[in-house]
Amino acid sequence: MNEIRVFSPATVSNVACGFDVLGFPLESVGDEMVVRKTTKKGLVITKIEGFELPFEISKNVASVSAQALIDCINPDCGFEIEIYKKIKPGSGIGSSGASATSSVYAINELLGRPFNKLELTNFAMKGEFIASNSEHADNIAPAIFGGFNLVKSLHPLQVLQLPTPKDLYVVIIHPQIEIKTSESRGILPKTVSLSDATKQLSELGGLVHALHTSDYELMKNSLNDHLIEKHRSKLIPHFDELQSKSIAAGAIGCSISGSGPSVFALTRGKDMAINVESIFKSVYSKSNINFATYVSKISSNGVVTI
Amino acid sequence: MNEIRVFSPATVSNVACGFDVLGFPLESVGDEMVVRKTTKKGLVITKIEGFELPFEISKNVASVSAQALIDCINPDCGFEIEIYKKIKPGSGIGSSGASATSSVYAINELLGRPFNKLELTNFAMKGEFIASNSEHADNIAPAIFGGFNLVKSLHPLQVLQLPTPKDLYVVIIHPQIEIKTSESRGILPKTVSLSDATKQLSELGGLVHALHTSDYELMKNSLNDHLIEKHRSKLIPHFDELQSKSIAAGAIGCSISGSGPSVFALTRGKDMAINVESIFKSVYSKSNINFATYVSKISSNGVVTI
Repeated sequence: MNEIRVFSPATVSNVACGFDVLGFPLESVGDEMVVRKTTKKGLVITKIEGFELPFEISKNVASVSAQALIDCINPDCGFEIEIYKKIKPGSGIGSSGASATSSVYAINELLGRPFNKLELTNFAMKGEFIASNSEHADNIAPAIFGGFNLVKSLHPLQVLQLPTPKDLYVVIIHPQIEIKTSESRGILPKTVSLSDATKQLSELGGLVHALHTSDYELMKNSLNDHLIEKHRSKLIPHFDELQSKSIAAGAIGCSISGSGPSVFALTRGKDMAINVESIFKSVYSKSNINFATYVSKISSNGVVTI
Repeated sequence: MNEIRVFSPATVSNVACGFDVLGFPLESVGDEMVVRKTTKKGLVITKIEGFELPFEISKNVASVSAQALIDCINPDCGFEIEIYKKIKPGSGIGSSGASATSSVYAINELLGRPFNKLELTNFAMKGEFIASNSEHADNIAPAIFGGFNLVKSLHPLQVLQLPTPKDLYVVIIHPQIEIKTSESRGILPKTVSLSDATKQLSELGGLVHALHTSDYELMKNSLNDHLIEKHRSKLIPHFDELQSKSIAAGAIGCSISGSGPSVFALTRGKDMAINVESIFKSVYSKSNINFATYVSKISSNGVVTI
């Protein structure tokens, strides 16, 4: 195989009760990338479509992660990369994670899979780092492994694949506003009350148990965020209305996707997802903010060859 | 049935990563109680053996919880209670929880089970409250339901029964020192760092996943406490040595039981439990502090008729 085309999914991280540790990928929203073997060693980005991103190897998330893989195995060939970027950077649904994932996955396939998924996650984190200036894997791990993932630890990297009920859908609204990562991180408190931390423990424990037992009522009961949402939601216009109306309509949960501004809702089944999407649309249609919405099944695969 | 004799187990709460939400009961350590129907309405404690506790109905944990049940159903008889107290009050292994549990369980059996386990937990919490002056269910729920329990919320009371691998044993050492509850609670910080809270989330999520998948390696990896242990362990002589030596010997985890001073270790199988018990003994034998040790399977039943 000398050429491969891959799809790398958008991802929702944090997922209300799992700040910095939990995430899942979308089945039908993501980037595409074509990677080709070249006789000349090294890495070249030959095309970037969709959004403006750097062609420089040391500055593009996808090439930084790819380079980490290449440095590790030193293959007897090079690679050229075409990036078809569909997830807007800064949207909060794992745009940089998708970039970082697609290149390492594609090159690993072209080389006959010398690395396992955990190793690929480690390479992809190098790319993610230059985008966010912080080390995290709660977008990358789900993009690589598929399904709900819990990042148990970063050093050493340990990823737990949680059961993912088949009929879970996610609805995303992406308000086209810019929230600087620095602002979104800066608004977080350095400390939280022991009481809130304890509540969050019970929510996360509840969600993990609910995923194992396919208990939708418990999922609904557990998708609460006592630590982060109250701070970051201030940066997202109409957040409270999105949340209260989608929950009232029957969504399992609704919170901020990653560090925002995107907001996600989980639903059981596609009909409810479409219903919640129309609620999201109607809330934002009253404002003068541009927005995009997505409805997708949760992907149980993550990044795939297409 | 006019008379019943019950066994109510000692319990380990918090369990390293689940402060205020997690607990499990011991199979072979606990209190006994005999409860008898009387034609005269009302409640009398006729005997207390083992430790000095109040006979006054409004001051004894067992009668306070029993009274809460009686007030709810107003039965056409009364009850007399004999308490055979074996768990020392203030030991940190759920002494008051066992008292509060045994009376409501026994009376519910004598009355033909008008209440379910969740309702019994609610009654028992009234007794627990007068012992600790704080509302919690992480000792009572395991004593009533058996196995690992996660207290998802107190209002409304919601208890999740987690899978409990069959070959889990627990070792307890109870140093006979007095730690006042006020001291043990007062030493806790009001706030914790967001980073520690996040670590704790990954530990609890890891443990719940490990219990569902019988993954002992992950259990070992997850039984860490980033919030409480570093503060309370200062009150427990030789804590660090108990922990490091038992883990080095092969224990799955070791931390403070409840608010201490008891320390627990979890092991896979009885042989390792006996091994860890001898380590605990050797650590404390060098000191001039009296102590007791216990080895028990984790009970999958909780309180039972004997």
